[in-house]
Amino acid sequence: MNIDYSKVKKITINAPLKLDCGETLEKFDIAYETYGNLDETKSNAILVFHALSGDQFVTGTNNVTGREGWWNQVVGSGLPIDTDKYFVICANVLGGCMGSTGPKEINPKTNKPYGLDFPVITIKDMVSAQTHLLDFLGIKKTLSVLGGSMGGMQALQFCSLYPERTFSSVPIACAASHSAQNIAFNELARQAIMADPNWDSGNYFLSGKVPRNGLAVARMAGHISYLSEQGLQSRFGRKLQEGDGLNFSFDADFQVESYLKYQGYAFVDRFDANSYLYITRAMDYFDLYKLNNGDLSKAFKNTNVKFCIISFSTDWLYTTEESKKIVIALNSIGAQVSFVNIVTNNGHDSFLVNEPEFFQTLKGFLDSTYEDFKNENSR
Amino acid sequence: MNIDYSKVKKITINAPLKLDCGETLEKFDIAYETYGNLDETKSNAILVFHALSGDQFVTGTNNVTGREGWWNQVVGSGLPIDTDKYFVICANVLGGCMGSTGPKEINPKTNKPYGLDFPVITIKDMVSAQTHLLDFLGIKKTLSVLGGSMGGMQALQFCSLYPERTFSSVPIACAASHSAQNIAFNELARQAIMADPNWDSGNYFLSGKVPRNGLAVARMAGHISYLSEQGLQSRFGRKLQEGDGLNFSFDADFQVESYLKYQGYAFVDRFDANSYLYITRAMDYFDLYKLNNGDLSKAFKNTNVKFCIISFSTDWLYTTEESKKIVIALNSIGAQVSFVNIVTNNGHDSFLVNEPEFFQTLKGFLDSTYEDFKNENSR
Repeated sequence: MNIDYSKVKKITINAPLKLDCGETLEKFDIAYETYGNLDETKSNAILVFHALSGDQFVTGTNNVTGREGWWNQVVGSGLPIDTDKYFVICANVLGGCMGSTGPKEINPKTNKPYGLDFPVITIKDMVSAQTHLLDFLGIKKTLSVLGGSMGGMQALQFCSLYPERTFSSVPIACAASHSAQNIAFNELARQAIMADPNWDSGNYFLSGKVPRNGLAVARMAGHISYLSEQGLQSRFGRKLQEGDGLNFSFDADFQVESYLKYQGYAFVDRFDANSYLYITRAMDYFDLYKLNNGDLSKAFKNTNVKFCIISFSTDWLYTTEESKKIVIALNSIGAQVSFVNIVTNNGHDSFLVNEPEFFQTLKGFLDSTYEDFKNENSR
Repeated sequence: MNIDYSKVKKITINAPLKLDCGETLEKFDIAYETYGNLDETKSNAILVFHALSGDQFVTGTNNVTGREGWWNQVVGSGLPIDTDKYFVICANVLGGCMGSTGPKEINPKTNKPYGLDFPVITIKDMVSAQTHLLDFLGIKKTLSVLGGSMGGMQALQFCSLYPERTFSSVPIACAASHSAQNIAFNELARQAIMADPNWDSGNYFLSGKVPRNGLAVARMAGHISYLSEQGLQSRFGRKLQEGDGLNFSFDADFQVESYLKYQGYAFVDRFDANSYLYITRAMDYFDLYKLNNGDLSKAFKNTNVKFCIISFSTDWLYTTEESKKIVIALNSIGAQVSFVNIVTNNGHDSFLVNEPEFFQTLKGFLDSTYEDFKNENSR
């Protein structure tokens, strides 16, 4: 994958970023996109956090890959996050591969790509980095910070660290810590990448041979976990690729096999294998319970942020139970929190597909908090 | 992996075996073990079918690997399948790698290992092959045919094809057809194996380089699916391998990572990668609905077999719902069927671990049907 940098908008932050691992990045880049316009009272900024395989190209066309934005159904003119109304910001996460500083970027100390010399980062590091983007854009306080999956984790972490910098938050399909099953899936993905000889201990930039197979297998594992058993069954069941008979071979006989292979190998053209290692690691390390000595409510003590927690009934990667724990913690400190569990067959992927009830919830919550925030700002 | 053949007991069947794929094996080997003794009326023979990664060494010590038998807690003196009472038979499946004819055995046409020249086999082919072992052992009718997971599928297939050859059957933690999610997990495993350059289109016997990494990743995917989310959480949670702090590296920080890696790499010393492809394929092809034009009850029409169907509440690979469908089909034709769903946290692995209610059910069912079968045989 070669990023054409001329097509990526980014800022260089010339302030040191102290990371959770103890190391410091002396300076770093944040690649980002914005959509819509900031209003006069600066009341309409929404910081969207992307998930594991996402990037800053939330909507429209991704300049670099030519693909559609990953939230094209949600963000745009007249859509739930209406860009005629809101100023939407999204940054590529630290450790990512769409222009922000990460393992594929040049290490200023060696003038070679970082590879595994890049420090292991955390969700907290990702979020800290993005506050510099808000500063750059002149936004002291956003209307909302939100996202699904790892985006939701960033939203939770942001609200815990910087409650004064957002009026509301919508953590979607996420959890306050990664479960053993989540860690297991991510470890499977990492092992698949590291098992590929082309990976070469992360130094594949030297040979130019990309660990395509390893990354594709990693992505396939992800896709299995993103769909519900019911969703897979109703979408694919045992439908064959062609005709009525089995091929008695190891080619893709079933449509679900062909789907997985397609998803796996399409991914390698747009994603960096080392980034996949770093970002999954950050997810595994995420544990707001542990950061607060086991008491999640302490993460949000005295918060004024208005929360809307959204989960999906068949999401088995980030279950409704995990969302309920967040709701319970927030209620226990009298925080303003609403909770919606959307009943659907679409599993974890629900936040990325057409889910009318989800869209309604998101739009309703944002539109109403926008009125409140505007009033606050005009007082 | 090198099988020391002197330690594997096997018979060569010199009768052609017509396979589902259309090809014919002119002759084939069945490696097998027996435990206990056949009683005078030949009423106590139990044919155990093994699962994907199992073999004929049900109990005691596996002669070849030195490991414990895979059902050491279930089969043995005084255990639920009591070898003081029953004559237990288990054969390595066709396509396996513990001595029965499979991709690692010598192709008589080329005098080289079959590799991918081995025909793609089905559960039906596996079961047909094993009837020859029963003939060889002089057993016209077994007391029971049973097994878990793929072993349960073989039990169902056996009862459908040869209802006159068994008095009872206990299909455990299985389904009458493979779901899209099951196929997806197996395809992930196959892709991991085939992505390993050492696999060399199945010809790794030429280079002597084994696709260890690919097979290990495949096995890790399996292990994730064998445990329930609750089981993983209570067993591992976010427990760290050592000490209290994170290592900020890609080594195994969490115990669940270390568990997966251990399970993955331990497997490659005892299993053949091509066998893994063939056996998972046979599982994916299994569809008793389709074999009976969508009507599962037709698979068992007029059956006299007494069934005991066992499922486990947190098994998400072969769900309780799948077992219920079998029970419904059997009831709809007035077959004798009992059904037990064991409530446990142990997921699909439940049939391999200490589950007292499961043991009780199995023992009770076998002991009572044994009385009935003895009476029938002495009339």
